[in-house]
Amino acid sequence: MMNVLLVAFLGTSAYANPKPTTKTITVGDAAIAYRILGGKTATPLVLLSPLGSTLDDWDPAVIDGLAKSSTVIVFDNKGVGSSTGKTPASIAEMAQDAVSFIKALGYSKVNLLGFSMGGFVAQEIVETEPQLINKLILVGTGPQGSEGLAEIGQKLQGAANLSPKEVFLGGLFAPTESSRKLGEASFARIAAKTEGRDLPLSKESFGAEFAAVLGWAQPDTAGFARAKSVTNPVLIFGGQCDFFIPVVNPVKLYEAFPNARLVLLPDAGHASFFQYPGLFVQEAANFLKN
Amino acid sequence: MMNVLLVAFLGTSAYANPKPTTKTITVGDAAIAYRILGGKTATPLVLLSPLGSTLDDWDPAVIDGLAKSSTVIVFDNKGVGSSTGKTPASIAEMAQDAVSFIKALGYSKVNLLGFSMGGFVAQEIVETEPQLINKLILVGTGPQGSEGLAEIGQKLQGAANLSPKEVFLGGLFAPTESSRKLGEASFARIAAKTEGRDLPLSKESFGAEFAAVLGWAQPDTAGFARAKSVTNPVLIFGGQCDFFIPVVNPVKLYEAFPNARLVLLPDAGHASFFQYPGLFVQEAANFLKN
Repeated sequence: MMNVLLVAFLGTSAYANPKPTTKTITVGDAAIAYRILGGKTATPLVLLSPLGSTLDDWDPAVIDGLAKSSTVIVFDNKGVGSSTGKTPASIAEMAQDAVSFIKALGYSKVNLLGFSMGGFVAQEIVETEPQLINKLILVGTGPQGSEGLAEIGQKLQGAANLSPKEVFLGGLFAPTESSRKLGEASFARIAAKTEGRDLPLSKESFGAEFAAVLGWAQPDTAGFARAKSVTNPVLIFGGQCDFFIPVVNPVKLYEAFPNARLVLLPDAGHASFFQYPGLFVQEAANFLKN
Repeated sequence: MMNVLLVAFLGTSAYANPKPTTKTITVGDAAIAYRILGGKTATPLVLLSPLGSTLDDWDPAVIDGLAKSSTVIVFDNKGVGSSTGKTPASIAEMAQDAVSFIKALGYSKVNLLGFSMGGFVAQEIVETEPQLINKLILVGTGPQGSEGLAEIGQKLQGAANLSPKEVFLGGLFAPTESSRKLGEASFARIAAKTEGRDLPLSKESFGAEFAAVLGWAQPDTAGFARAKSVTNPVLIFGGQCDFFIPVVNPVKLYEAFPNARLVLLPDAGHASFFQYPGLFVQEAANFLKN
């Protein structure tokens, strides 16, 4: 089964983003691979990856767009892609690793953008290390115990025999011609990067991340109480037809956070920001600026 | 009781917007008072008023801001303010009146912005006269049978002994210092207009509108089926702490419309667009343009 999941989720990792240079920094017992995009701004935006994703899986239209107004930092989780070490099997440990990485780079305050599993990690960080975080952007994600998340295994297995492109379109976009067409454009942008690519995930690292996601799928009665104490500004961005984390979940996040702005788009799925990169970059830049 | 409601809701109608000139146009058996703001654009934006509201109750920061990129038309419902005729006691009749007014002005296609009760009217129009409508902006509103709407009488009575300013702040903003401060700024902008003001509502007209709102509070099992057939682009804008139409209602609208964008803000109430006029104008202009 793990191989099925691996094939299903690593589709776009076969392609690569040639710029900028991938660097590594030693964090504890691991070498963490990362890239910095854009000019120097006081508070960088650190991106937290979804399940099975490496440095090359972000849509360039999104990250290059964000980098026009902010320093953008992408990195591989421990044991993922070009990072060494053992990938943790819990969101809490991933959050600790991300905090250690951010501090190793010398930052005392950052903005976070978490996509899907990265959004789980972002929530964990802002609740455990609030002083490190300025603002939070959450895309295609939900609270601990998100409705529909426990079925992710079946959903991925259903895509077992599809091509990487079909997995990308079916998993991340709405099942409409218009959404799929914009999904194809996103896929092409990601695929256009062919040099200096990151390494794919090992089955073991994917398995650990998958276990972490299933752990987050468990109900957490204290979760909302924790979220209510987060006073940081939060921008929640999502699509109406999210296959993995149904749209009720970002709505719940909005209701829980005292200082959250919610933007939900029509005819879009899990990767709403890959479908509407121009709109997302505008909303994110506006949110980070004001 | 009606007098209590009248005092509660007509607070800001005591103030006026001196520009532009108020015109009238004969529509059936009534003279409808209206104003046109901004330059000439192909598709104007027609504003639909909330309960008890006249031409002077729109925050100038919002309507002047919108008028920078679109022709903006505000008008008084039949029997309201400077309009003659008998105010209808149902949303459906208000929708028919608005359609007749728009056609009398010579337009065959318009954008609509409906606030609160105006959002009910906008939904009725787009469902009954879809060919007349291009895009729809809904603020502080919900579907027929909105949760919490049936309690509006008690909510208004609770404000019976408050000053107009307190009614404005308590009813339209969040119960926080930050929201109330921005509410005071909105109140001051509306109050700054002292010349050429509109007439206040009569008790009879307010009573008719109130009956129409209570009618809309009745559950409507067919409502969602109707909303699902509306393919027009819709922008839904709301605040986290809406006293009259709780935020669950715009979320339901978003779920029902196939082509809706939802923007919900933190620390804001029923008049979220009066609290954040700059952000609202930006979102609305962007939505109408693209």
